[in-house]
Amino acid sequence: MQSSPLLENLVEHLRCLPGVGPKSAQRMAYHLLQRDRSGGMNLARALTEAMSKIGHCSYCRTFTEEEICNICDNPRRQQSGLLCVVEMPADIQAIEQTGQFSGRYFVLMGHLSPLDGIGPREIGLDLLQQRLQSEQFNEVILATNPTIEGDATANYIAEICQQQGIKASRIAHGIPVGGELEMVDGTTLTHSFLGRREL
Amino acid sequence: MQSSPLLENLVEHLRCLPGVGPKSAQRMAYHLLQRDRSGGMNLARALTEAMSKIGHCSYCRTFTEEEICNICDNPRRQQSGLLCVVEMPADIQAIEQTGQFSGRYFVLMGHLSPLDGIGPREIGLDLLQQRLQSEQFNEVILATNPTIEGDATANYIAEICQQQGIKASRIAHGIPVGGELEMVDGTTLTHSFLGRREL
Ligand SMILES: [Zn+2]
Ligand SMILES: [Zn+2]
Repeated sequence: MQSSPLLENLVEHLRCLPGVGPKSAQRMAYHLLQRDRSGGMNLARALTEAMSKIGHCSYCRTFTEEEICNICDNPRRQQSGLLCVVEMPADIQAIEQTGQFSGRYFVLMGHLSPLDGIGPREIGLDLLQQRLQSEQFNEVILATNPTIEGDATANYIAEICQQQGIKASRIAHGIPVGGELEMVDGTTLTHSFLGRREL
Repeated sequence: MQSSPLLENLVEHLRCLPGVGPKSAQRMAYHLLQRDRSGGMNLARALTEAMSKIGHCSYCRTFTEEEICNICDNPRRQQSGLLCVVEMPADIQAIEQTGQFSGRYFVLMGHLSPLDGIGPREIGLDLLQQRLQSEQFNEVILATNPTIEGDATANYIAEICQQQGIKASRIAHGIPVGGELEMVDGTTLTHSFLGRREL
């Protein structure tokens, strides 16, 4: 690639995408240059806008470019009295696709991991506690990943709920233990919502 | 993804990359937002610069942001008297990695394909003929892909060379027939250079 430092630079930066090695980065760069320059320009604009403007909903912590996201801002969602706690924004999308949940969410942006210095404050549990105090919730559904850390985080939040007299439930069977919630198919996820049990 | 139109937009535009489906586009977008926003910004800049500034070398037609690329501009390369004709810029990189070729290149940006309306002019053969006339070449190495179209293109160019009294050779064994030159390993490519035969 002695012929173009800019091409070399593009290949290098494409590698910041997960799953993209040197060979596929090169293939991507040549593809864009040869066949889809306007696609490349549009992608650049979409990246710039997303990276610079997307922040976190001040209410549920999911990704949004607004102060409060569309889901939190929806009056019908607010009336359900249900709050679903998930680890990552991608989990919301997976749950939304099942069409089984009509409440609102709270995104931890991770899970408790004391050894990595990730305690209750790092996953926003102070904000969650505020929400539980200032609003009327009938049930908090704990949809963290079915891993050791996800289970521990769910139990920790269930205790907070109990202290406040709010019913807490954990999504149940169907999700393979050790799996990632984001990767589960819609039917399995639906079952795990229907089969949730109180903690 | 109701929560962020900008995120939705980013996922959509990531799909212009070859081999990136909806799931991996989503994974890429979340990865950048969650863990590597500066990487995402740098990628946007690299894309913008590459898409807007990279053109073609006026001499060999490979990708470059200069009027004439570094390879064509190199006096040592000019003295070799060798010209290697390839289909795509990526082929140059594959050949450069073998370290076996010290001449210059000519990039067709494709191959003859009359049914698709791609004739001699579309692959720059008028420019190639100019170069063969205005300079002293000892040999033209035809390194088009070993496909039906690549072979036909090589034969067509070999005739042009013969008319001008210039030796033409075709790179030889080692490359699997029907394969893509860009995908061949360095050793195989080296063998095919050493075993080239005159046409
Ligand atoms: Zn929200
Ligand atoms: Zn050049």
